[in-house]
Amino acid sequence: MTETGEITGRTRVLGILADPIAHVKAPPGINRIARRRGRDAVMVPFQIAPESLAQFADALRTLKSFDGAIITVPHKGPMTALCDEVTPRARAVGAVNVIRRDADGRLHGDSLDGVGFVAGLAANGIAIAGRRVYLAGAGGAANAIAFALAAGGVAQLTLANRTRAKAEDLRTRILADHPDIPVTVGSDDPSGHDIIINGTSLGMRPEDAPPLDFARLEPSMIVAEVIMVPEITPLLASAQEKGCRIHLGRPMLDQQIELMADYFGL
Amino acid sequence: MTETGEITGRTRVLGILADPIAHVKAPPGINRIARRRGRDAVMVPFQIAPESLAQFADALRTLKSFDGAIITVPHKGPMTALCDEVTPRARAVGAVNVIRRDADGRLHGDSLDGVGFVAGLAANGIAIAGRRVYLAGAGGAANAIAFALAAGGVAQLTLANRTRAKAEDLRTRILADHPDIPVTVGSDDPSGHDIIINGTSLGMRPEDAPPLDFARLEPSMIVAEVIMVPEITPLLASAQEKGCRIHLGRPMLDQQIELMADYFGL
Repeated sequence: MTETGEITGRTRVLGILADPIAHVKAPPGINRIARRRGRDAVMVPFQIAPESLAQFADALRTLKSFDGAIITVPHKGPMTALCDEVTPRARAVGAVNVIRRDADGRLHGDSLDGVGFVAGLAANGIAIAGRRVYLAGAGGAANAIAFALAAGGVAQLTLANRTRAKAEDLRTRILADHPDIPVTVGSDDPSGHDIIINGTSLGMRPEDAPPLDFARLEPSMIVAEVIMVPEITPLLASAQEKGCRIHLGRPMLDQQIELMADYFGL
Repeated sequence: MTETGEITGRTRVLGILADPIAHVKAPPGINRIARRRGRDAVMVPFQIAPESLAQFADALRTLKSFDGAIITVPHKGPMTALCDEVTPRARAVGAVNVIRRDADGRLHGDSLDGVGFVAGLAANGIAIAGRRVYLAGAGGAANAIAFALAAGGVAQLTLANRTRAKAEDLRTRILADHPDIPVTVGSDDPSGHDIIINGTSLGMRPEDAPPLDFARLEPSMIVAEVIMVPEITPLLASAQEKGCRIHLGRPMLDQQIELMADYFGL
């Protein structure tokens, strides 16, 4: 939209693809950035069922006023295969969370989850290069973060997941892209690491099992979350009790919104 | 959008389909009405080439956050055939200028050009029932207006067009729907009518031929335009010189915006 908030025939359209969609939080943030940067663009919700995604992606190729979209649940994986081109990190993770349309109607996809998380750490003064990092999880978020950690030059990356085979698989894929990074599959014990990251959804609900053994946390560790609600998960509460520095889930989203705006050319 | 102008995951999406699209004027008006009526909906531009229209219409069927769209040049005719259902007046005119999507994904189309014009007259205190009306033109706008005039119970409808066969064809189609209205094909002479309407685009450019014989205008006539730019066409200037009451092109758009908002359920 224009600086006065008005949408005209010249306004460029951005979308967010999700199903359900009422809960998505990104449009106000993206639209605020567009206004702040003086860009005549607006993000609106595109609710599309999984079975309609391929057809809708083809329609977006033909929509000349469309510049790009955020891709979220349940479309991140399937959209990857529908793009004409994806970044190596998105291909490695098997998911895109942003797409953009070029003037020829080709769709390009990227995954900003991992770099968003690392940018959130950096914005909080936490560098990952040369650090020994423990990551719980091997799902979508953990995959994206693991590749971003490897790309960011960690000294050691330990992957821990309840289903060990998924961690082994993730390790293999990371080593294919980053053969020089020491990647191991670990247990629920985070001992011997500088930065501890929960990349699972465990901790969102009160009855969740712990994502790792809280008893092995040490005061020297930085403990980070991907979960945004609750703000202080049981993991972060335990870490605070131990005297650890903590890092909330929210900065990952805040940093990603800026990265997404950059990606869309705002 | 919400009352604060924010677009969220709950915001309903409306579109305007056109190609080119930079010049379209409707989105700010529709969005102002949505805000005024307290509706969380926003209209954005959908620029689609003619060859992509059918595919895009199918995609709109699957877009669960989409409620409807304005259809304008060059899509009014082709979209008519792509709707699952159209109103009798849209079928008669062979054009839709609005569509809406129902919960099952079916597309319904209507043509509000004609009723918008008649509502514009009414808003200006000009009733058509029982009046003898002369209409220049047999194109898209004139078709829509002619059917609305017939539906509005004019006492006489005279159709005049440079290509007489098109006026004959329009007359035949009107009589099929409104057998009781006296419809004739006339010349460029508007004598003997109460309301004179230019339904052609003649008068937009200085070099245009006159849409009818200005010399036959009489002070008792009301003279109306569909052209908005210039505001005072050569026809309206001549009518003013003769002492006729004139009716500008703009009210047709203003009234249609309200009718469109009603149609979209705003």
